[in-house]
Amino acid sequence: MHVGVVGAGALGLYYGAMLQRAGHTVSYLLRSDYQALNAAGLTVHSINGDFYLPEVRGYRTAEEIGPVDLVLVGLKTFANHCMIDLVRPLVGAQTMILTLQNGLGNEELLADAFSPQTVLGGIAFLCSNRGEPGHVHHLGEGRIRLGEFSGGDSERSRMLADEFSRAGVPCQAVTDLRKARWEKLIWNIPFNGLCALLNQNVNLLLGHASGKQLAGQIMEEVVAAGNAQSLSKPIDGAAFIPRMIGMTEQMDNYCPSMMIDRQQGRPLELEAIYRIPLRMAAQKGVAMPKTEMLCQLLDMEEHQ
Amino acid sequence: MHVGVVGAGALGLYYGAMLQRAGHTVSYLLRSDYQALNAAGLTVHSINGDFYLPEVRGYRTAEEIGPVDLVLVGLKTFANHCMIDLVRPLVGAQTMILTLQNGLGNEELLADAFSPQTVLGGIAFLCSNRGEPGHVHHLGEGRIRLGEFSGGDSERSRMLADEFSRAGVPCQAVTDLRKARWEKLIWNIPFNGLCALLNQNVNLLLGHASGKQLAGQIMEEVVAAGNAQSLSKPIDGAAFIPRMIGMTEQMDNYCPSMMIDRQQGRPLELEAIYRIPLRMAAQKGVAMPKTEMLCQLLDMEEHQ
Repeated sequence: MHVGVVGAGALGLYYGAMLQRAGHTVSYLLRSDYQALNAAGLTVHSINGDFYLPEVRGYRTAEEIGPVDLVLVGLKTFANHCMIDLVRPLVGAQTMILTLQNGLGNEELLADAFSPQTVLGGIAFLCSNRGEPGHVHHLGEGRIRLGEFSGGDSERSRMLADEFSRAGVPCQAVTDLRKARWEKLIWNIPFNGLCALLNQNVNLLLGHASGKQLAGQIMEEVVAAGNAQSLSKPIDGAAFIPRMIGMTEQMDNYCPSMMIDRQQGRPLELEAIYRIPLRMAAQKGVAMPKTEMLCQLLDMEEHQ
Repeated sequence: MHVGVVGAGALGLYYGAMLQRAGHTVSYLLRSDYQALNAAGLTVHSINGDFYLPEVRGYRTAEEIGPVDLVLVGLKTFANHCMIDLVRPLVGAQTMILTLQNGLGNEELLADAFSPQTVLGGIAFLCSNRGEPGHVHHLGEGRIRLGEFSGGDSERSRMLADEFSRAGVPCQAVTDLRKARWEKLIWNIPFNGLCALLNQNVNLLLGHASGKQLAGQIMEEVVAAGNAQSLSKPIDGAAFIPRMIGMTEQMDNYCPSMMIDRQQGRPLELEAIYRIPLRMAAQKGVAMPKTEMLCQLLDMEEHQ
């Protein structure tokens, strides 16, 4: 399978490297890392064992790559205004586009520009950060849940899940992608925002009684908002929330991507992770006061 | 009138100086400023004109002062566990105790220790900060609304209001102190906390659309909580909130006391300004999700 990676950050580089190691041809669209990766290859520092890819197919433009079998989108959502132009040259008649981006609204953009049938979405439970150019750190988790944007079962989603799994990325095909997205938001909405706002990693946050209480309360808001979206089956918050908090407590001082974005002065993914979910909740008459306040505070911090 | 000032910070020093300039005998209970004030006097840098008091009656212990006519309490509420011991030596048979502290719960502590009839409360709309030892900066506002802890009209509350007014401090006696306290909380709860959390002064905060929106939403929560407390007359939020926001926008980059407390590593007045109001709202079944979240975030920042 020829895979084109658009948005080769901590996530795109890690999954691209895993697929490449498993024998797929992977082409990376690169900007700042172009020199380092083409010159010295890519090193993955992983909890499952480090590995090194001496040859990396890095390109400066999507046109040089051309149509691929699978476009893997790992672009930060604050760059979504560039996404379609970056993806278009990679899309041929048989191309699948799989966005592993955070939050909501990404599949919709791709479906509008190409066709809904082209688009799959995936939720990556991945703790990874970029190191110096040519290095990516895989710190924990890594599994993917993917499914058709149009919903339902499909052979290709199961095939893709198998390819990822064979490559060492536990992957499951789901029939209700929207439910999977909301389940991921139950993690992203509290932890990305609170860690970014307070500049505290997830373990510091949960180590504080007020932090743990607040994270749980925000999670409850997200469960209620998700369950108002006519999911195939409601999310059972009473079981799901403690499990997510327990899983997060097992992390090793993980810094969510938004916390690192803020530390490094990058924009924050407020639209995909906060504003679109808030609008979808409001449309269903569900109040998310603490989620809204977190978004307001992050907006203030970003535009100080 | 012999006035004893307990808690001679930015507020206690300013009002003490105003009363002293008007001819009252004012004794200040001092700690860190003792040397500077006794040696060099007190300078008030005021928007209404600077003035200098060469002689300041500063004391290291309340016992040296002894019973006074009026105890003016300006202590930070996080030091309330010391308050009764500091006030007791100043209280004789005819002494009035007027607490100008922030938030709720202060009159109750004094009334429990002495008698409800001894206690008055006042709400100070004052923008003041301490400068170097021996200097206090009066940056804006300054008016006081005071009333009996036990409620209702009283001759002495009107007398006290007259004394303050004669001393250049606009002062009004109110019959419903609890209502006045809640009205002040409509300002304190959003601005103290948000400015402290974000390290932004009130004008920066209100200059940001999200900040202005959030401040207004928190104010609405406080109005609802206050109006659940059987006040003599409900607070008209629709009129009151825009007026408070408009007044605050006229301030000159004012940094609320909690913001300065946080910058200087002091404890935050979370109990008086947040936790007691939150408990009183909960007792009446009123939800204050954003106020609660602000308290949770401040608690995390304080105990990081």
